[in-house]
Amino acid sequence: MKKIALSSALLAISGLASAQSSVTLFGIIDAALQRGSGSVADRTQLGSGANSSSRLGFRGVEDLGGGMSASFWLEAAVLVDTGAGGPTSTNNQPSGTPATLGGTQGLTFARRSTVSLTSSLGELRLGRDYSAHYYRYIYDPFGNNGVGASQTFLGAPTTGINRVSNQIAYHLPSNLGGIYGLVEYHLGENASNAGATKNDGNGGGVRLGWNGGPFDVSLTQARTSYASTATLGDITSTTIGARYDFSVFSVMGQYVRDKVDTAAAFTGRGGNIAGVWRVGAGEVKAMWSQYGTTAAAQPETKKLSLGYVHNLSKRTAIYGSYARVRNSGGATVALNGSITGANQSSSGVDLGIRHAF
Amino acid sequence: MKKIALSSALLAISGLASAQSSVTLFGIIDAALQRGSGSVADRTQLGSGANSSSRLGFRGVEDLGGGMSASFWLEAAVLVDTGAGGPTSTNNQPSGTPATLGGTQGLTFARRSTVSLTSSLGELRLGRDYSAHYYRYIYDPFGNNGVGASQTFLGAPTTGINRVSNQIAYHLPSNLGGIYGLVEYHLGENASNAGATKNDGNGGGVRLGWNGGPFDVSLTQARTSYASTATLGDITSTTIGARYDFSVFSVMGQYVRDKVDTAAAFTGRGGNIAGVWRVGAGEVKAMWSQYGTTAAAQPETKKLSLGYVHNLSKRTAIYGSYARVRNSGGATVALNGSITGANQSSSGVDLGIRHAF
Amino acid sequence: MKKIALSSALLAISGLASAQSSVTLFGIIDAALQRGSGSVADRTQLGSGANSSSRLGFRGVEDLGGGMSASFWLEAAVLVDTGAGGPTSTNNQPSGTPATLGGTQGLTFARRSTVSLTSSLGELRLGRDYSAHYYRYIYDPFGNNGVGASQTFLGAPTTGINRVSNQIAYHLPSNLGGIYGLVEYHLGENASNAGATKNDGNGGGVRLGWNGGPFDVSLTQARTSYASTATLGDITSTTIGARYDFSVFSVMGQYVRDKVDTAAAFTGRGGNIAGVWRVGAGEVKAMWSQYGTTAAAQPETKKLSLGYVHNLSKRTAIYGSYARVRNSGGATVALNGSITGANQSSSGVDLGIRHAF
Repeated sequence: MKKIALSSALLAISGLASAQSSVTLFGIIDAALQRGSGSVADRTQLGSGANSSSRLGFRGVEDLGGGMSASFWLEAAVLVDTGAGGPTSTNNQPSGTPATLGGTQGLTFARRSTVSLTSSLGELRLGRDYSAHYYRYIYDPFGNNGVGASQTFLGAPTTGINRVSNQIAYHLPSNLGGIYGLVEYHLGENASNAGATKNDGNGGGVRLGWNGGPFDVSLTQARTSYASTATLGDITSTTIGARYDFSVFSVMGQYVRDKVDTAAAFTGRGGNIAGVWRVGAGEVKAMWSQYGTTAAAQPETKKLSLGYVHNLSKRTAIYGSYARVRNSGGATVALNGSITGANQSSSGVDLGIRHAF
Repeated sequence: MKKIALSSALLAISGLASAQSSVTLFGIIDAALQRGSGSVADRTQLGSGANSSSRLGFRGVEDLGGGMSASFWLEAAVLVDTGAGGPTSTNNQPSGTPATLGGTQGLTFARRSTVSLTSSLGELRLGRDYSAHYYRYIYDPFGNNGVGASQTFLGAPTTGINRVSNQIAYHLPSNLGGIYGLVEYHLGENASNAGATKNDGNGGGVRLGWNGGPFDVSLTQARTSYASTATLGDITSTTIGARYDFSVFSVMGQYVRDKVDTAAAFTGRGGNIAGVWRVGAGEVKAMWSQYGTTAAAQPETKKLSLGYVHNLSKRTAIYGSYARVRNSGGATVALNGSITGANQSSSGVDLGIRHAF
Repeated sequence: MKKIALSSALLAISGLASAQSSVTLFGIIDAALQRGSGSVADRTQLGSGANSSSRLGFRGVEDLGGGMSASFWLEAAVLVDTGAGGPTSTNNQPSGTPATLGGTQGLTFARRSTVSLTSSLGELRLGRDYSAHYYRYIYDPFGNNGVGASQTFLGAPTTGINRVSNQIAYHLPSNLGGIYGLVEYHLGENASNAGATKNDGNGGGVRLGWNGGPFDVSLTQARTSYASTATLGDITSTTIGARYDFSVFSVMGQYVRDKVDTAAAFTGRGGNIAGVWRVGAGEVKAMWSQYGTTAAAQPETKKLSLGYVHNLSKRTAIYGSYARVRNSGGATVALNGSITGANQSSSGVDLGIRHAF
């Protein structure tokens, strides 16, 4: 993600200069022709963000002196196929996002909206950002985008809480010899007289990792509370992942476990293993992923993903991806908007352009 | 439309420089006091974009070398009278824009949201942009804005599809000796098992023109499919238009034909003829336009538009417009929010400021 | 509110230079941990803008020569805790903002969306901006933000019209020896056949003040029309306020009177008195405010607000505020999302970070 920095020269013009201060306008515009095939119906569509999520953002850093800095980050999803934005949630609960707005959904800074104070002791960050539930997508060479995205959940126990509002987070500083991590807490903001649901949307997590040269490994634990109903309940996610970068080849993988305390409680387990080969200006990607749960009938989905990205510059690439899923135990996961029957397969192809600024 | 270019100097600062790369923030803010009179009710309002549609946008070009470039364009409608944005459609069908949001409508990049690859062979453009149906507005000196906008449709067979989502377009290169044009295809993105409506919102068009010195002429053919109902059906539009620029005077006109295959199929025909006189820093505009259909009772509306624009600079103007419509065959077209009875007249006046950046 | 000016150097690059022309990207990101306590329920939340409203904006000025300039201002509310925007109104009436959108509310330029022509005779400003009703918040050291905001209304007779759409305003020039002021008119834009409600949302006001060195005083009169119902009716607001700046200490206060012609007409009266002490890089604030009405049972709320702001730079501060309200006559005002019973107290605390760019 490259960017245009409105940096110190400009800040000097307006009299706000300090050596490290800057405000940056940045974004990614990524569109792909997508085809999905399933046993019930196929679909052809123009999709947004099949290589990297389309977005528009504003961020800045102010040097406060003494090793301290203040910063902000506003990042909106942009659906390049339609021009629409994406919704956020006010309270990390279903009540906070009333209904899908389709073509009337305006831009929100739902991808990230934060203000931070940073020192050599770390960063205090307030606002909306990734929850710890999100980090199941870090060791996916498809970056959780497009037809090739790793199959590391089933249904959507965590999809609404990969990003959370009302978050207070502490991030470790970057000077710990490769150790990185964070602790986050997010608030559902319910009144104290809300009874059984008063903790709904409250949650938090811990992430700890080590990046030592070519090797990277991390462990994340996350939990968000919901009063138990047919579709909601406490969600506890554990993710462990690792990556090793050889010179032109890297391998990565992770294991994910979700405990979901709906009325009929179940456990989900899955993960992926992937490799990336750099070939000239290109990159070949292959991944196997799967996820299954202990819910009645034990639904499970297995996925093979193949991709090629050809870089035209540091900022621009064309790409193609292919993926195929196999469902069992009643699962009906289908790709690229296609519809597939229980225990049937689905496949899909993406062909796209990704441009960053 | 002038603009602020965050151009190569800045890109150099952030280390992304290449000679032709740039990111531009641009926009138009245009507000007018508008008065409309009709036989049923009059209205006084502050309107947005009566000379040129109010907007805010971000666009950029990256030189990829070898005559190739990548570019993006994000352009949002802004209603300056209220601060609201404008909606888009997810699928070029009524289902893609659920309901009018009024004052809660946030910004979307519904005017344009595209990513492109361009070479000497032309431009491949993906995203949301004008459909070929739009080009009926090119030879209107009022630019399809304000009380004076040409009356080249009746009711709204094409208003929802002047801009389309999920478009794949090819634009001819600019080095063809004045010949210009495009081919576009847009997708409704329906599942293949959607039955009679599976092609709804699919469409496309071809546009071809020639600009030779003072003379410009173009022909556009567009079609979008909808299963036939009382209000929807295949729409096929044909437009031919031309302009001739004398030194201080220009004339222009066009002819439009729409075939609309609703349950009671009908054909609409119309067009406009207009002249523009440049007088010092000012511009006097006059236009006659009309549109009628073969639907029961043969509704038809005829319109006279007069306008004056006084340029205070290249970026800023004040303007005034007057228009009057005459309805027949049961038509009830009224101007500037007034309400008029069947076969009654309506008139309106705009007085405004337009500022571009 | 500091800003990044994309100023003359840039405009020169794009060939649009004139000495004073500039376009500015600006904003404030302010987040606070907030706790509210009431007799019915407490609440803990992450709030946005508890010191200064979070926002993102674009504004610019073009020098037209001869002492004239054109300018625009687009300013959106940003809820940093969620990334959502804030709604506007199309017509200054309840019908113009259909329903609360929660997490799906996109960005609108509801804080301000204007285009202006300015000369030595003053400024003509068209669009959405503060109404004259707003100026009850000028002499509040908490700036009408956060738990400490002055209690100068009860219920919400004026909250929907502190900012109005469809406004035509004239602002006095800045060269009148400290005299400042404005006249504004805003339109409800109803059709002339709307009967009793045809003037709903129409209104206007006058503001006149004098700023002489350390002393500032102003008087504002505002009125907006609504057909009389149980909850709506003509609202007439009068505000008089003053401030005196000693070197490290300033005092300020105002008196507010609202006449509300609902079916059961009533009058509201209130005001505040406040002091600010500047202590090194910090600022201590204390305020007493109260507001009561003549409606049945004569509801009244009294409030004590205390705050401390510690400036880390001109652009960044950390802050803490405490406030407590006492209700009588059936009033139920509660702080920071808490819920309190009739005639019960409520208190709240804010701890936050404010960063401007």
